[in-house]
Amino acid sequence: MRDQFVTLAHGGGGKAMRELIEEVFTSVFEPDLMEDQARLMDDALQEQGARLAFTTDSFVVDPVEFPGGDIGKIAVCGTVNDLAVGGARPLWLSAAFIIEEGTEIALLRRIVASMKAEADKAGVRIVTGDTKVVGRGSADKVFITTAGVGVIPAGRKLEAGLTHAGDVILVNGFLGDHGAAIMAARGDMALSTDLVSDCAGLGHLMEAVLAAAPDTRAARDATRGGVASVLNEIADTAGVSIEVEETDLPLRAEVRGVCEILGLDPLYLANEGTLVLVVPADQADAAIAAMKTLPEGANAKKIGTVGTGQAGRVTMRTLFGGARIVDMLVGEQLPRIC
Amino acid sequence: MRDQFVTLAHGGGGKAMRELIEEVFTSVFEPDLMEDQARLMDDALQEQGARLAFTTDSFVVDPVEFPGGDIGKIAVCGTVNDLAVGGARPLWLSAAFIIEEGTEIALLRRIVASMKAEADKAGVRIVTGDTKVVGRGSADKVFITTAGVGVIPAGRKLEAGLTHAGDVILVNGFLGDHGAAIMAARGDMALSTDLVSDCAGLGHLMEAVLAAAPDTRAARDATRGGVASVLNEIADTAGVSIEVEETDLPLRAEVRGVCEILGLDPLYLANEGTLVLVVPADQADAAIAAMKTLPEGANAKKIGTVGTGQAGRVTMRTLFGGARIVDMLVGEQLPRIC
Repeated sequence: MRDQFVTLAHGGGGKAMRELIEEVFTSVFEPDLMEDQARLMDDALQEQGARLAFTTDSFVVDPVEFPGGDIGKIAVCGTVNDLAVGGARPLWLSAAFIIEEGTEIALLRRIVASMKAEADKAGVRIVTGDTKVVGRGSADKVFITTAGVGVIPAGRKLEAGLTHAGDVILVNGFLGDHGAAIMAARGDMALSTDLVSDCAGLGHLMEAVLAAAPDTRAARDATRGGVASVLNEIADTAGVSIEVEETDLPLRAEVRGVCEILGLDPLYLANEGTLVLVVPADQADAAIAAMKTLPEGANAKKIGTVGTGQAGRVTMRTLFGGARIVDMLVGEQLPRIC
Repeated sequence: MRDQFVTLAHGGGGKAMRELIEEVFTSVFEPDLMEDQARLMDDALQEQGARLAFTTDSFVVDPVEFPGGDIGKIAVCGTVNDLAVGGARPLWLSAAFIIEEGTEIALLRRIVASMKAEADKAGVRIVTGDTKVVGRGSADKVFITTAGVGVIPAGRKLEAGLTHAGDVILVNGFLGDHGAAIMAARGDMALSTDLVSDCAGLGHLMEAVLAAAPDTRAARDATRGGVASVLNEIADTAGVSIEVEETDLPLRAEVRGVCEILGLDPLYLANEGTLVLVVPADQADAAIAAMKTLPEGANAKKIGTVGTGQAGRVTMRTLFGGARIVDMLVGEQLPRIC
């Protein structure tokens, strides 16, 4: 393929499109069939009581390449994580690309390579896809939409509604790295940091947690809206209160610094590899220990407890001993964060 | 919801996003769970020998509303059709929206209503989704990516590679309506026609064909690149030649007119409800009769035959008795056709 840039012809359904798809996409993803749909089966899906999990996300992150990842890595991790936090073992992914005319083919190749690497790490296969090209100015470089299919083994039940007073809230590590890294990478702020996105697949971590803490109530991947929005959603759905300890929040000094300079609250910063778990108190230590055996969970810790206060209310005990309400995010903190 | 236009806050992961999702999307699609992934099962998937079909497409059609449909209708039909032509019964769809800041909420509501209507008609459910908002000028109104999951019953096998010399090529009706309707709707050409897109779900039609012509070799939905590209792909994969009769091509007078004025070949015009079938000659009449029982197949007919000429070669016998090669589309005929 000698073209250096994507042209409208690459989206036209003819020879140029076939060449782009074969040379840039399917030669790397290696789907089983060259038909327009994948045909699949997995023994786990045919077991009595198993359920199929199905999820999708579009990714529009700007810039498309940033410290710690790129839009392709996020697109695979984000969908793998949505499946994993529902208790599913991720199996298959689809990947649909909307590409702006003029985008460099070399950029597409880097994105595709990073998707393949991340899919291999997560043990999933990218089995089907699509490519559309729009005129210059009708999209911004490349948008990716992934959908994922996984299998939830019989008997596994993770739901925010199962959260009880007395349960504890755990996270797998530092908060806000992704949001702060993207903000710094945009360059609008002239911030120079060594921050790297936390973008990571959480499938293996979830399996480790579920083995160690089988009564885990619910899990969430704290992306847009941050940990604050996830806790509000859980408190609201389960009709419980949640109290977070500010001193327990795992924050890197640099994230804290970015937040202080820009007047942001790290609880609302986006993450791309941050697991929030609700576990019964007596299984918390086991869950933390299990997470610490994996790199994605090296900094796992407890950050809060579930109580019987006002239903749906999330509060934070501050460093100074006071308490403040942690509401859902209103408005937006940073557009195109994922 | 009092907002009239989509703002960046509607993509931020906070309250505004939740409101948009609940009021515009989930109140219509009514997924079973409000978790971020759907949890599903269907008896047919657990039958011995059944396979799961999985496909995705992004839709970027311009204009988003056109005679005979809109981007939402296309997004549902396109994915249903990809499943159906692979022999699958479509079950579940995901829908991910990339929305440009400033898009009218009323437009979104119309699109969502048309998706719901089309899903109901096809017997599929839209079970999970996503919403992203990008700044003005970073997308064009709304892009939709659907993924679909269906079940292929045991023993069903449709593959281009099964095509033999002696088989015949059938279509379900008029060619090129979608491409010609979009071209006229764009208004660039100052063409005024009554043309309407052929956009339609083909799931029920495929089931009727497979019941009547159980040895059907392969089926394709002739979208971008038109019938010409589909026939080239089949001829290439199966290593056969295909000969089409120009006199047999079902073309509306208006499509023929648009093509003459603009110097286009109707065989390359995009369709959104056009089924191309390869069936054994002795089951062709049964397949045509079965199609004619449904509105989507009212104009079904034979358009060509499979031969033993040069492998991969598609030719057309013209009105004047000559023959010309029908190659794959080179370049693009009309960007953002679907």
